[in-house]
Amino acid sequence: MTELRGPVRIVGTGLIGTSIGLALARLGVVVELVDGNPDNALMAERIGAGSRLVQIEPQLVVVAVPPDHVGAVVAEQLQQTDAVVTDAASVKSKPLADARRLTGDLSRYVGSHPMAGSERNGPLAGRADLFDGATWAITPHETSSPDAVDLVRRLAEAAGARTVEMSVEDHDLGVARVSHLPHLMSALAAGTLADAPSSHLELSGQGVRDVTRIAAGDPTLWTQIVSANSGALTGLLEQIRGELDRLLVALGKEEAGDELTAILGQGVSGAVRVPGKHGTPHIDLVTVLVTIPDRPGQLAKLFADAAESGANVEDLRIDHSPGRPVGEVELAVKPASVDQLVDVLTDRGWVVHR
Amino acid sequence: MTELRGPVRIVGTGLIGTSIGLALARLGVVVELVDGNPDNALMAERIGAGSRLVQIEPQLVVVAVPPDHVGAVVAEQLQQTDAVVTDAASVKSKPLADARRLTGDLSRYVGSHPMAGSERNGPLAGRADLFDGATWAITPHETSSPDAVDLVRRLAEAAGARTVEMSVEDHDLGVARVSHLPHLMSALAAGTLADAPSSHLELSGQGVRDVTRIAAGDPTLWTQIVSANSGALTGLLEQIRGELDRLLVALGKEEAGDELTAILGQGVSGAVRVPGKHGTPHIDLVTVLVTIPDRPGQLAKLFADAAESGANVEDLRIDHSPGRPVGEVELAVKPASVDQLVDVLTDRGWVVHR
Repeated sequence: MTELRGPVRIVGTGLIGTSIGLALARLGVVVELVDGNPDNALMAERIGAGSRLVQIEPQLVVVAVPPDHVGAVVAEQLQQTDAVVTDAASVKSKPLADARRLTGDLSRYVGSHPMAGSERNGPLAGRADLFDGATWAITPHETSSPDAVDLVRRLAEAAGARTVEMSVEDHDLGVARVSHLPHLMSALAAGTLADAPSSHLELSGQGVRDVTRIAAGDPTLWTQIVSANSGALTGLLEQIRGELDRLLVALGKEEAGDELTAILGQGVSGAVRVPGKHGTPHIDLVTVLVTIPDRPGQLAKLFADAAESGANVEDLRIDHSPGRPVGEVELAVKPASVDQLVDVLTDRGWVVHR
Repeated sequence: MTELRGPVRIVGTGLIGTSIGLALARLGVVVELVDGNPDNALMAERIGAGSRLVQIEPQLVVVAVPPDHVGAVVAEQLQQTDAVVTDAASVKSKPLADARRLTGDLSRYVGSHPMAGSERNGPLAGRADLFDGATWAITPHETSSPDAVDLVRRLAEAAGARTVEMSVEDHDLGVARVSHLPHLMSALAAGTLADAPSSHLELSGQGVRDVTRIAAGDPTLWTQIVSANSGALTGLLEQIRGELDRLLVALGKEEAGDELTAILGQGVSGAVRVPGKHGTPHIDLVTVLVTIPDRPGQLAKLFADAAESGANVEDLRIDHSPGRPVGEVELAVKPASVDQLVDVLTDRGWVVHR
């Protein structure tokens, strides 16, 4: 079993790099911070993510630079050190191919992908607990040494993450499906609203808000992510185009109900497979709707009352349609808790709907 | 000004019809309940939405039957009564065209669309407050009489809704954009997950959950909705296909960054136009992240502490990635409240990130 002793050199002190530094620093591991932008490294150092000057050779290098540069920096670090090198890019095949083109021996390189993030960027958004309980994919390639794989797993565990090991190809197809394709579909749907009349936007409900939320993400970053995974994405987008054509043909027919229902049914089959809280399918939870006046303190009162019922609120959502003076809170709880929850809330005067 | 005196006949006692009945009954308006399925009408009557036997001729008929049958029932009611007739279907051009084919004078018909719903169906899901503060679109056609339009507006107001008047065509294009197209995009994205390996689903985060949530909706109902609005939807889907082709071409190129960024940027422009709570763009709110242990009572404590800071929580979201032992709550508040909120929560021992 390889031990993570440090020092760990972090190249790239944005959100991910700084957070890894903070997580390791809390365990007493020596962390060296490197960034092309000296201000970033300085900020990361000031908030306790490590030091800019470490005299000892690193045991492990973590490359957390923007996606386009990962392969080159991995190759450079393999050449400049004897350390195990990993990276944190969200696509794994392109950095591997880039590094392979630039250097010979890749046995000390093991790609990885900590699956946590934030809408905030930069070192000041860094957090020691960013990876607590998150999934961290580890993607060895054919020539990765077992010791190197082990050390990267230690890193992920030290940061508090749950590791999943899979091949580079499988990882990239997986994130294409559950992250990159949803992002592009969200962007395409949102794109049709850019020039829409305001009167159309006034008809918006919760559905369009949910579908388009992630489309607000940084286009420059997403261009890099999507470009790096173009292989896996192209196959999925062609599949989508096939379904879109089927949809268009069906909509053009007089009687196309069965075909439409089949396409929509396929969507239901996929939607219910998306894991909810703690990996349990959301279908196992029961939701309760509570009407709530829109003023301070009401949520506090609601959750205090809910807590007294003994129910653990597993998920919640506020519905806030334009112009509604009252809100509606949807509480999801385990089926066993629902009766007690409804009874207690009703007793306390809440308007509750199941 | 036309007054809503009643009786109001409601044809179709599902969620929408029953809720309209309950809303009118609380104002003392006499409501007659009609349903092809006598059990439904009986249930609606039992929960107080009106009576199955009313001897007086109706002043207003509300047709709230499944989308495919609306036009025929509207025509029938126009022929059988002297009442103003409206309907509650979510697409307005098809019922109008169907009714026009079946009857002569449509001056007493004014379409409308109460924009509220629930994941629950049937009379027992009915609620007197379903439309409180919701948007209710009123869509007169060229021959609708002004008195009829007035009476339908009174109905919507009596149910507690905010009315928006627009043409049939404008309404259908609007809902195609903000409701039906997002639904289809969600279904297509979710459809690619139906046969995906479980290891791919393990990589799911909040993004794919949001994008695919509405795809879980009833395929039979959505087939009717989408078919009824095929005209407006076809145009939008063709626009999507054009963008999808652009995306595929861009992904196939070596250097396609600018094109991808343009497509993603268009998505950002659309996403930020979707109204958030009370019609304000979500961009005006500041979000604060709070780490929260996953056990009963913690949300109550958090909201009690938040309330003491004086901040009104405008929106919230729980992030619950698979396997995370702790959750993260995102609170959205007005910029003016954020400093005080962060100070109070930090004082009380919460781990808070801005």
